Amino acid sequence: MRTQVAIIGGGPSGLLLGQLLHKSGIDTVILERQSRAHVLGRIRAGVLEAGLVNLMHEAGVGARLKRESFLHHGTNIAYPGGMFHLDFKALIDQYVTVYGQTELTQDLYEARDTSGLLTLHECSNVTLCDIETKNPRIEFTHDGQTKHLTCDIIAGCDGFHGPSRQAIPREKRREFEKAYPFGWMGILSETPPVSDELIYANSTRGFALCSMRNPTLSRYYVQCDLSDSPDNWSDDRFWNELKRRIPQEAADTLITGPSIEKSIAPLRSFVCEPLQWGRLFLCGDAAHIVPPTGAKGLNTAASDVYYLWQALLAFYDDSDEAALSRYSETALARVWKTQRFSWYMTKLLHHFPDQSEFDHNIQQAELAHLAENRAAQMALAQNYVGLPY
Amino acid sequence: MRTQVAIIGGGPSGLLLGQLLHKSGIDTVILERQSRAHVLGRIRAGVLEAGLVNLMHEAGVGARLKRESFLHHGTNIAYPGGMFHLDFKALIDQYVTVYGQTELTQDLYEARDTSGLLTLHECSNVTLCDIETKNPRIEFTHDGQTKHLTCDIIAGCDGFHGPSRQAIPREKRREFEKAYPFGWMGILSETPPVSDELIYANSTRGFALCSMRNPTLSRYYVQCDLSDSPDNWSDDRFWNELKRRIPQEAADTLITGPSIEKSIAPLRSFVCEPLQWGRLFLCGDAAHIVPPTGAKGLNTAASDVYYLWQALLAFYDDSDEAALSRYSETALARVWKTQRFSWYMTKLLHHFPDQSEFDHNIQQAELAHLAENRAAQMALAQNYVGLPY
Repeated sequence: MRTQVAIIGGGPSGLLLGQLLHKSGIDTVILERQSRAHVLGRIRAGVLEAGLVNLMHEAGVGARLKRESFLHHGTNIAYPGGMFHLDFKALIDQYVTVYGQTELTQDLYEARDTSGLLTLHECSNVTLCDIETKNPRIEFTHDGQTKHLTCDIIAGCDGFHGPSRQAIPREKRREFEKAYPFGWMGILSETPPVSDELIYANSTRGFALCSMRNPTLSRYYVQCDLSDSPDNWSDDRFWNELKRRIPQEAADTLITGPSIEKSIAPLRSFVCEPLQWGRLFLCGDAAHIVPPTGAKGLNTAASDVYYLWQALLAFYDDSDEAALSRYSETALARVWKTQRFSWYMTKLLHHFPDQSEFDHNIQQAELAHLAENRAAQMALAQNYVGLPY
Repeated sequence: MRTQVAIIGGGPSGLLLGQLLHKSGIDTVILERQSRAHVLGRIRAGVLEAGLVNLMHEAGVGARLKRESFLHHGTNIAYPGGMFHLDFKALIDQYVTVYGQTELTQDLYEARDTSGLLTLHECSNVTLCDIETKNPRIEFTHDGQTKHLTCDIIAGCDGFHGPSRQAIPREKRREFEKAYPFGWMGILSETPPVSDELIYANSTRGFALCSMRNPTLSRYYVQCDLSDSPDNWSDDRFWNELKRRIPQEAADTLITGPSIEKSIAPLRSFVCEPLQWGRLFLCGDAAHIVPPTGAKGLNTAASDVYYLWQALLAFYDDSDEAALSRYSETALARVWKTQRFSWYMTKLLHHFPDQSEFDHNIQQAELAHLAENRAAQMALAQNYVGLPY
């Protein structure tokens, strides 16, 4: 088998890159470790920056997104001092788009099917070969057979646990990491969201987030211990804890119901440098992880996809190898900005078990500053809706 | 002896409060532990917020300050990614005033002399008595004799090590503290400043600050170990280290000379709550300390003085005790804002010995964000020039 760009990973990054390249006349094959049903069963982020929405339209897959998504022109931040509204529209005349990652992935699969592009699911033993040459190759097992895919370029869109990052020699990459001493216990429930817009809550009992997918599907989270298990969280316990962490008026109007999904996610910041090794280019979670506070995971993967797509256009149209060699630096510059923002939001909103009383008061002073300082609100809003590519 | 307001501490806070009260027809006596020469020999901050400058004018002691001070319409921040200018004028149309604390203290003493107001120096064994009654009293030793000063109100302006804060029962006050793992090695030299405005430098070798008192008197600092001693810092060593921490163009034009003062200051954040106990009211360093990054120490003392002065006016003019009872909460609200800012500036600009590589990169990303985000610059500028009282 041969293709121009071999994409490892059939999640949203790989699919979006594949679709953008297809629109530009560049051939791709996607290799995915899981089944398609598994990929589509993942519950992930749902807050999209304008940059990602634009890429979906560029890729020709924005129709349903446009029809079924919701625009949020602001967000709410609650803390013991009160709740305030960050009005993106008034502050910077921008917005974010609420549309589940599952829906976005499904749209991309359908477009890929329609275009008759090759996606191989349930690929195992994926091995990247000869990536330091101009003819890299992927060896993998599929349908019980060992297969080979030769290509010009490998795009590593295979997430944190995929083989792509590991294919960069250990001594040639640097990894930067921070683990946070808590997780997010999240549930999905077929109930109307408690608020039209998100509520991020810093409470004395820990962080909580009221989010949603659509007017009948809500997503709620509470900060929990890292060692906790969803088995410890009955629906009742979850709803009661959530109510104690959000403002009274929200707690009073919260509509509860059975959870249809329940899980705990740890919070981690991680960056691998560089994003390129020979003809291998990493995108998204394969190279960097953000804590979910501020919803930058999928959005930062999308900015990588944008930069790699542009570099590949230059490579194929103008035989410009220099654009590819700049990809890592260009993408990382924005990656570190979203790392900073996600770290800041996480520090701002969570209860840190080892926090001194001084640090706690500084955190509350930071929230009070944000509640009343319009310039600080503008800076936060600019980062929240997404910095320009 | 009797007075209306007994002021413990003859530094700038006590002197300024005394002068403002005198202008308002309220009688004061100041008790100071040190000699006047000692107080005037202290080398301290030199960057004044507009609020403090206004108070000096209100107190009728602004003439020389107006004549001899310098207005700074911006400041410079250098980091490994480059140097950028925070243009206070363009961002928020405001400025700070450069005038040494020593000069300001001297102006206040001269005004106090001219008005014939009583200041007792070299008072020892200062003891606050009956502060929970309406007739508090200070017992102290002066000129070898035990003396008593009775009053309506005691203003504790006696700094971190003074007796006033300790007069609040230990179980009735809460203290919040953070120590930073480094100090500032500072020198004063009779050389022209390297830059018209301050340069705050985050360098791989640690923080440095280029500051000044006037066109022929410079003040420079480098971050050093807490265990270090000025004896380890010859002038040559200091100048060489400073040059390695500031941008090349500044290092190349730096004019060096013999130091005329050399000292190391630790960095600490500290807040005591409440600021009132009975008829005792704390102002400035007696109740709170900031690390010097951003020059908020004297300026925050001045905002306390302002709030206490206003409350005392209400107390004496309208017999309004409620204004005094609100002093602590009102002053602390602004204290925590300057604590937040001083902590932020300290975190932003110093090398932390125990910092992970991830934390280091986040710090650099924060600087890069500030270098290019106008809203973030505005928020910083608003805090730097001084939040409104």
